[in-house]
Amino acid sequence: MGVHLITGGAGFIGVNLARRLLEQGQTVIALDDLSLGKLEFVAPLTRFPDFSFVKVDCSSSDDISKALAKIHERTPVSDVWHLAANSNIAAGVADPRIDLTRTFLTTFEVLAAMRQTGIGVLHFASSSAVYGDAGGAAVDENWGPLEPISNYGAMKLASEAQIRAACESFLTRADIFRFPNVVGTPATHGVIVDLIAKGRATPHEIEVLGDGTQRKIYLHVQDLVEAMLFITSHADARYNVYNIGPADDGVTVREIAEMVRDRVAQGGAIRYGAGNKGWVGDVPRFRYATDKLIALGWKSSRNSAAAIRTAVNEIADQPWRA
Amino acid sequence: MGVHLITGGAGFIGVNLARRLLEQGQTVIALDDLSLGKLEFVAPLTRFPDFSFVKVDCSSSDDISKALAKIHERTPVSDVWHLAANSNIAAGVADPRIDLTRTFLTTFEVLAAMRQTGIGVLHFASSSAVYGDAGGAAVDENWGPLEPISNYGAMKLASEAQIRAACESFLTRADIFRFPNVVGTPATHGVIVDLIAKGRATPHEIEVLGDGTQRKIYLHVQDLVEAMLFITSHADARYNVYNIGPADDGVTVREIAEMVRDRVAQGGAIRYGAGNKGWVGDVPRFRYATDKLIALGWKSSRNSAAAIRTAVNEIADQPWRA
Repeated sequence: MGVHLITGGAGFIGVNLARRLLEQGQTVIALDDLSLGKLEFVAPLTRFPDFSFVKVDCSSSDDISKALAKIHERTPVSDVWHLAANSNIAAGVADPRIDLTRTFLTTFEVLAAMRQTGIGVLHFASSSAVYGDAGGAAVDENWGPLEPISNYGAMKLASEAQIRAACESFLTRADIFRFPNVVGTPATHGVIVDLIAKGRATPHEIEVLGDGTQRKIYLHVQDLVEAMLFITSHADARYNVYNIGPADDGVTVREIAEMVRDRVAQGGAIRYGAGNKGWVGDVPRFRYATDKLIALGWKSSRNSAAAIRTAVNEIADQPWRA
Repeated sequence: MGVHLITGGAGFIGVNLARRLLEQGQTVIALDDLSLGKLEFVAPLTRFPDFSFVKVDCSSSDDISKALAKIHERTPVSDVWHLAANSNIAAGVADPRIDLTRTFLTTFEVLAAMRQTGIGVLHFASSSAVYGDAGGAAVDENWGPLEPISNYGAMKLASEAQIRAACESFLTRADIFRFPNVVGTPATHGVIVDLIAKGRATPHEIEVLGDGTQRKIYLHVQDLVEAMLFITSHADARYNVYNIGPADDGVTVREIAEMVRDRVAQGGAIRYGAGNKGWVGDVPRFRYATDKLIALGWKSSRNSAAAIRTAVNEIADQPWRA
């Protein structure tokens, strides 16, 4: 049984990972600055005696190094899961400083604090955004060139690079998980949240950014957590990079809009915009090779359509509105 | 004729680039914080009326944004050449914050200032260090995975990623030059400087880090400058990535040590250490594909051995000691 420190531990993926680890009987310490994460997401975890939460800004050298030293002295940390990041890609397009601070400097400062404290195992939430627009090719982990087209993707790639270099000095183990779009609850943003909000606001007509032909792959957060834990226990290199995703070609925005309409705005019309890019940094057609993960022995139980269908119902039912 | 702003303009490569641009009749504004660059390197350029120098720390958001706005208002800048970086790889291994600040944050802040000021053309000095240890494969510009093993390489890759993302918003043109080892004068560090210093200190016995079998490619700084200018005028994409180097397999440390010995310590012995890595982040065997640059129409006039031979003589003759 280990002691797992999760940065971004009050965020969407953080709380799902924490719950699973706690159910396994592990100890979890969640760190979050609560800029995107919420205490109400963490609340259900407090019934586990081995769970604790610390509010800390991981992009502050002082704050994270002090917090980590204090935690580690009391309860020696076995694994750091670095999930803290700006998950709002569009915000980072408008102001690159957001991704610099929240997506990259959090990684840099968490690494610096780990080095100082003497913690050697890091699991990192990277993103398919590091690949940029590969023109529809099925990108695998050795794909090049890496040309991120969003500041978010750029700062995830920067984080990977810094982690890789740290494996030459103090890190004894690093896992890089390249996430696809992840859906589920507690949801704060993303295409399903947006469409449900629109469907509730104007049930007669749901407005969609772009022409609805964008096709993307989606993974349910429960499957994502399962995949991360599987890689952590089965991959055996010092530095492991894995695409995580379902083995399908994804679903279109049109299909998602229809599922949302049928759930929250039955009989409503769906109005599409022009073009197949929703925003700067959005990749219209993205394919993802997960052969490496399949070869390791893990395959998603849900495909993209099933992930979306599950998530639409879960998000429509969640008590908070994003 | 353009107005060229060079960050790191008092550094080794900066002053060579500046001189060539000035000789072409262009206007050059050199920026440098003088942490590694030196005013004595810049001094010979002051005879050109179209040269000016501004001391500024490009990693400071305030300093660079104010400096760039002031310069651009007086003399509209056509091109920014971003060369400022920590060129001392070993220093960055010891303290990752050096590469964060000098190699990456300079890029981030120069981009932010360009966006604010409305300058759209960037030429960037990247490095073969972004590739990491490719195990002897001849890496081309589309090589993957990119796994830098030094913080320097990590922060050069981070810089490339941020520049690539900026091409989706305000940059109208970016050139990424991936440099090999570059030699020539004014030299402040590197294998030739080290060996000449040793040869002068103890002419009877020159001590070499590692077993001397490390083989690397070297480009003379004059050829590097020529290649950068060639790419700038001949490549026509919005985002251009080019390996720059000679089309050979390089020279060994042993060959370099012998050239240095014959120049500054005739008849001296050379004593080798153990292993084929000089320091953390050093890649023992590195091969580099320059086919893309050759296809564009440029080929180095000197091979690696000729570049080293020229540079050994130049550095032995330079008036300052590093």
